[in-house]
Amino acid sequence: MATSLLSRQLVLSLQQNLRLTAPGCRYVSKAAAKTQVEFEYDGPSMKTEVPGPRSKELTKQLGEIQNVGAINFFCNYEESRGNYLVDVDGNRMLDYTHLLYSYWLSAFVNRPALGIMPPENFPEKLAESLLSVAPSGMSRVQTMACGSCSNENAYKAMFIWYRNKERGHNNPSDEDMSSCMINQSPGCPDFSILSFMGGFHGRTMGCLATTHSKAIHKLDVPSFDWPIAPFPKLKYPLEEFTRENAQEEARCLEEVEDLIVQWRQKGRPVAGIVIEPIQAEGGDNHATPDFFKKLRNIARKHGSAFHVDEVQTGGGATGKFWAHEHWGMDDPADIVSFSKKMLTGGYYHKDELQADKAYRIFNTWMGDPENLLEEVTRSGKTLLQGLYQLQDQYPNLLSSARGQGTFCAIDIRDDATRNSILLKARDKGVLLGGCGDRSIRFRPALVFKEYHVHMFLNVFSDVLAEHN
Amino acid sequence: MATSLLSRQLVLSLQQNLRLTAPGCRYVSKAAAKTQVEFEYDGPSMKTEVPGPRSKELTKQLGEIQNVGAINFFCNYEESRGNYLVDVDGNRMLDYTHLLYSYWLSAFVNRPALGIMPPENFPEKLAESLLSVAPSGMSRVQTMACGSCSNENAYKAMFIWYRNKERGHNNPSDEDMSSCMINQSPGCPDFSILSFMGGFHGRTMGCLATTHSKAIHKLDVPSFDWPIAPFPKLKYPLEEFTRENAQEEARCLEEVEDLIVQWRQKGRPVAGIVIEPIQAEGGDNHATPDFFKKLRNIARKHGSAFHVDEVQTGGGATGKFWAHEHWGMDDPADIVSFSKKMLTGGYYHKDELQADKAYRIFNTWMGDPENLLEEVTRSGKTLLQGLYQLQDQYPNLLSSARGQGTFCAIDIRDDATRNSILLKARDKGVLLGGCGDRSIRFRPALVFKEYHVHMFLNVFSDVLAEHN
Repeated sequence: MATSLLSRQLVLSLQQNLRLTAPGCRYVSKAAAKTQVEFEYDGPSMKTEVPGPRSKELTKQLGEIQNVGAINFFCNYEESRGNYLVDVDGNRMLDYTHLLYSYWLSAFVNRPALGIMPPENFPEKLAESLLSVAPSGMSRVQTMACGSCSNENAYKAMFIWYRNKERGHNNPSDEDMSSCMINQSPGCPDFSILSFMGGFHGRTMGCLATTHSKAIHKLDVPSFDWPIAPFPKLKYPLEEFTRENAQEEARCLEEVEDLIVQWRQKGRPVAGIVIEPIQAEGGDNHATPDFFKKLRNIARKHGSAFHVDEVQTGGGATGKFWAHEHWGMDDPADIVSFSKKMLTGGYYHKDELQADKAYRIFNTWMGDPENLLEEVTRSGKTLLQGLYQLQDQYPNLLSSARGQGTFCAIDIRDDATRNSILLKARDKGVLLGGCGDRSIRFRPALVFKEYHVHMFLNVFSDVLAEHN
Repeated sequence: MATSLLSRQLVLSLQQNLRLTAPGCRYVSKAAAKTQVEFEYDGPSMKTEVPGPRSKELTKQLGEIQNVGAINFFCNYEESRGNYLVDVDGNRMLDYTHLLYSYWLSAFVNRPALGIMPPENFPEKLAESLLSVAPSGMSRVQTMACGSCSNENAYKAMFIWYRNKERGHNNPSDEDMSSCMINQSPGCPDFSILSFMGGFHGRTMGCLATTHSKAIHKLDVPSFDWPIAPFPKLKYPLEEFTRENAQEEARCLEEVEDLIVQWRQKGRPVAGIVIEPIQAEGGDNHATPDFFKKLRNIARKHGSAFHVDEVQTGGGATGKFWAHEHWGMDDPADIVSFSKKMLTGGYYHKDELQADKAYRIFNTWMGDPENLLEEVTRSGKTLLQGLYQLQDQYPNLLSSARGQGTFCAIDIRDDATRNSILLKARDKGVLLGGCGDRSIRFRPALVFKEYHVHMFLNVFSDVLAEHN
């Protein structure tokens, strides 16, 4: 009994892993394309304040066991569907944070076991799913259990690659082998990863040395002496400030080159550069394709690996499957890491020894992705237009509306007002999240349609009127 | 459709998370205690060499996508049950490595989502399951996604604790807040974790700085200048070499104190000490309860946190739920980390501010654990006795048989012979694993009974005869 349940569940879990791998894509999987959409509610419905009495009671109970500082409310996942999250007090909210997907899609198979004794259909499924969306120029993928592990292991891959390049061969010396056991060079070399102020790449100690979004992540944890470059602080909308923005990007790129030279002179050469296509946790900070192209060339020029962290941006929300596709490059990166929306985590990487396979069979990944990405582009445009209008209407409240696809954000006058707006919107049944010091970010499901955007804009407009 | 499947699967996954949390404990869950046992096969059955043709074909396919160096063979999980693993070529093997459990029990819910919007029954289930087996003196538990993340976050907890102790309060200065953003002290202090040669605590960069089992894990990855103490090299059986072993342990403890003083003088104080109750990956190296008691006291004396890593040893295999229970201490540790067999990962920790809760309701954890642990103790004794006999019979092949419960190991003459024995045993349908330079380790399921031990000893004896 339990065996068949378990093996059934395993099969389900694998199927989900390999088929339902983008947010909301349960609605576009071949098996359940139509029936799902009918399930969706027709709007928010609020019954109590949030958190309601039941959530408060549960928070109290859980607080006796572990830290509950991050808990907003308790969820009724059985009743939640589509773009709507239902809490344990019966409140139904339009979900703009899209946390739900990570819950739905969270069951995944154990990677260590897969690495040793994978099930029969694993190669085929892996090829069909992950490799069908491999970034340009990459034919290999390494799966990992979580976002931090993906980046940690991507960094390790860059260090090993850099060291072998330095050696000129792949054979470590006896001194390498013995010194590494006691954490000393040459076995554990003094290499560094260059990262950007405002970046977020995870909270384990390697990742943390490249994370610079909030002090609370880093405080009291020992770190590495690695170079940190400024990320461009651009003015939005980008197309109205092209000259100033180009100057700002040039300044940052110059600083990157200076840091690479300085750290090489210090004896801590930059083995890799890591960057997000849009700094998400750091406040939805954008840069232009021109910036990323030039940065990629700087990495190549100095022999550093170029690692694009798509843990937040990958999966379709920007209107392209990978945000870096907006740069329009054939060779955008040496490593691309992913996680979260894509259920599993891991990184893609180049392999010069491997023939380039024609694996970009996009539609095995998630049904009818072209329509889906078109829809993301359309909804995102409507959303951004709406934000621009509101920004014109409330210039003392709003600024710097920005976005790619539905991956949008806007800045609020100050932190306190931002938080008040988040709460008021929630009371009206719209779940929004914050990022950076005073930004609101939008991360709807891929099935977020234009009428959801209008529903949101109406609520948001009401909330803003209360704050003016 | 998919929604109900998904939510069903989620519920299953949660139930498994919280009930079926030790290897083989699917056989003791209330729901399926009896029916399962009947399912078990009556012995190994080999149809082809291993890997067989189907496994080879699949390995070739997967090799085009990712690294297959670690793959032994492909598994038919639907047909595998009890102590038997069935491969895709129809070979049925007695599983002494117990990798199967990690596959069965691998689906787990997304921790980040749980931290923000947990489902209604989470506090209750968490209390019933994880806290029911909390180590002595610990009333709080923090869940994490994997073993490396568990240790990384346990280290961070120790650093934060140590820094607050140093400050005398919990309020970071402005300098702390600004310097940590650029990886510099005082915000990122130069603290260290003392670890032991031969230890294994994971492969992310923080964990890796405390891992010293094999060069291949560490080579080419930058590390921290942290102190590394010798782990006692004892003679087995321990009770026959008490005097020499006590001297060896005293030598190691003295070195620990010297290192703590040296690193404090260097300006890199030891915030925590991390150790496994049995060094598993490093070769199943044991130490006596006296060693651990004294080490715990050294940590207390010098103000360092004491972290016991039970990622490998926790869950019952040693005949106690936690291996550190063999030390017989009321206050064995400040932090105990766990993972793997226990499905989820995380760490327990002390909280002086929290009333000590009487949460040791062991039997909600896994049905009838007392009988199970008695059985582990009985099977383990039979196994170790059998290993002693074989060691007497083949003194030029075998040495240092050792174990707690069924967590046993034995050393083989050399690496090549060890590997040959592993392969021969597999050909006869017994799956064994290696650890250290030339050890074989035994990690059967908790439901491994005495007749399984005899079955194994017969096969092992045949294999040894071929190598004599």
